[in-house]
Amino acid sequence: MSGERGFIAALRALATHPAARQLDDDAAVLDVGGDTLVLTHDALLEGVHVRADEDPADIAWKLVAVNLSDLAAKGAAPVGILLSHSLGEGDDRFIAGLSDVLAAYRVALFGGDTVRAAGPRSWSCTAIGRATHTPVPSRSGARPGDAICVTGTLGLAMLGLKADERGSGSAADLAYRRPRPLIEEGRALAPLASAMMDVSDGLLLDASRMARASAVSFHLDSAAIPVADPARPGACMSWGDDYQLLFAIDPDAALPVAARRIGTVAAPDGAMLRVDGVIPDPRAMGFEH
Amino acid sequence: MSGERGFIAALRALATHPAARQLDDDAAVLDVGGDTLVLTHDALLEGVHVRADEDPADIAWKLVAVNLSDLAAKGAAPVGILLSHSLGEGDDRFIAGLSDVLAAYRVALFGGDTVRAAGPRSWSCTAIGRATHTPVPSRSGARPGDAICVTGTLGLAMLGLKADERGSGSAADLAYRRPRPLIEEGRALAPLASAMMDVSDGLLLDASRMARASAVSFHLDSAAIPVADPARPGACMSWGDDYQLLFAIDPDAALPVAARRIGTVAAPDGAMLRVDGVIPDPRAMGFEH
Repeated sequence: MSGERGFIAALRALATHPAARQLDDDAAVLDVGGDTLVLTHDALLEGVHVRADEDPADIAWKLVAVNLSDLAAKGAAPVGILLSHSLGEGDDRFIAGLSDVLAAYRVALFGGDTVRAAGPRSWSCTAIGRATHTPVPSRSGARPGDAICVTGTLGLAMLGLKADERGSGSAADLAYRRPRPLIEEGRALAPLASAMMDVSDGLLLDASRMARASAVSFHLDSAAIPVADPARPGACMSWGDDYQLLFAIDPDAALPVAARRIGTVAAPDGAMLRVDGVIPDPRAMGFEH
Repeated sequence: MSGERGFIAALRALATHPAARQLDDDAAVLDVGGDTLVLTHDALLEGVHVRADEDPADIAWKLVAVNLSDLAAKGAAPVGILLSHSLGEGDDRFIAGLSDVLAAYRVALFGGDTVRAAGPRSWSCTAIGRATHTPVPSRSGARPGDAICVTGTLGLAMLGLKADERGSGSAADLAYRRPRPLIEEGRALAPLASAMMDVSDGLLLDASRMARASAVSFHLDSAAIPVADPARPGACMSWGDDYQLLFAIDPDAALPVAARRIGTVAAPDGAMLRVDGVIPDPRAMGFEH
């Protein structure tokens, strides 16, 4: 087995349980009694997902928010989390940020564990939500003819990474440090979207993943894609950390949330993704990690 | 805040949700759709919980097993897990061990995430089980007059840590490398035990924790404690990694599983724990991490 892809493929082959189904890379679904739970798990690593000098309060916020964002893309209402934390400098700040995000989204802390590592710190989080609509939207339901839409503006978190130059508290700064999982938007879209996911690794990469999972081709119109920095549209479309919602939907459906139509789902045509008719360079589509 | 204790106390203060309750340090309980789920989360760190030269197959087994052991102590039937894995040498072995433990306990893999760290590797796991008996046993229910009992033999994993000297495949070797969560034993005990937990950090330390949570005193009789190495009883009683079940129970109850009575619960008498009437040195009770 070589690297992450082989590992994840091997993991996937192990995922079998009568009561549970692995919905896609973002989440699993568990039927319990008359309810449907949605389960997600994401890890953050110092130096990869967060900077070494990041405020631990922002790390805690991001750790929980990235998991809640996966719940949002499933139209799930957050219930609770469990987390692992690397103890170190700024534990009080971590608690403060954790308290902020749990209160903001009314999420319970079910439990966790702490470790004390010598190397780069790492954090992990499992989030549990309750589905508000079944079937739970997945990556794989996009159909030819669907409109492809995205909420918000892409690249804002990228600008926020350099917030020192732009002033703390700006929209870009907050987009990077305190991303907001779009829980209400996800709930509103769940009954209507044929496929949905959050944009965590860059619009182009995530769009190509949705196209692959749905066995279709995505045709995007770059002029329609809302970018935070018009001087660097490519960077905005391939940067991660935005946590907007990408979804495919009947083109005649009335959108229940603010979103832009950025393209159309086509029958498979030999490329997962075309932007203005051109197949993008796979190395420049987003954040592979 | 200073260190792990302060951090955990601060975490605990954040744990509030109408549908969920933090049962104790081992697990939380979530009522869903007429069922009661039990949730646990434990992390392993290279150099702390596992050796750097450990077979990744054994690391995977232990990662899942220590979480299932927490479920066992709640009488919960395992349903599924989510995990984080540090990619590196031996990922194929990790998958092999994971496959073993999932099959052995018929547990689903719901999802996970991978990271690639430069320093010591870390792993985390959330396990989800279904309660087979409510109220779910906790650490806090031991009552004066209860018998204190423990399953199995303590110190076997300690001997297994040096299995190179004792031969691979011995009982001690397996106890260290492939600990067996006592799922069936936990289910049988759940309706009867007034308090229950697994022995993961050393019998004396864990017994003192149960006494503290129950606001009682535990009086143990060292001669009754089953140890793997009679030449080193103190080490056996304070070593971690055994994953036996420690429980308090009506002294007249018929035990449904093989277990030894090792003491009696007393009213609070100024010490959480006495062994042969003596208060043990807190520094020699077990594995604080």
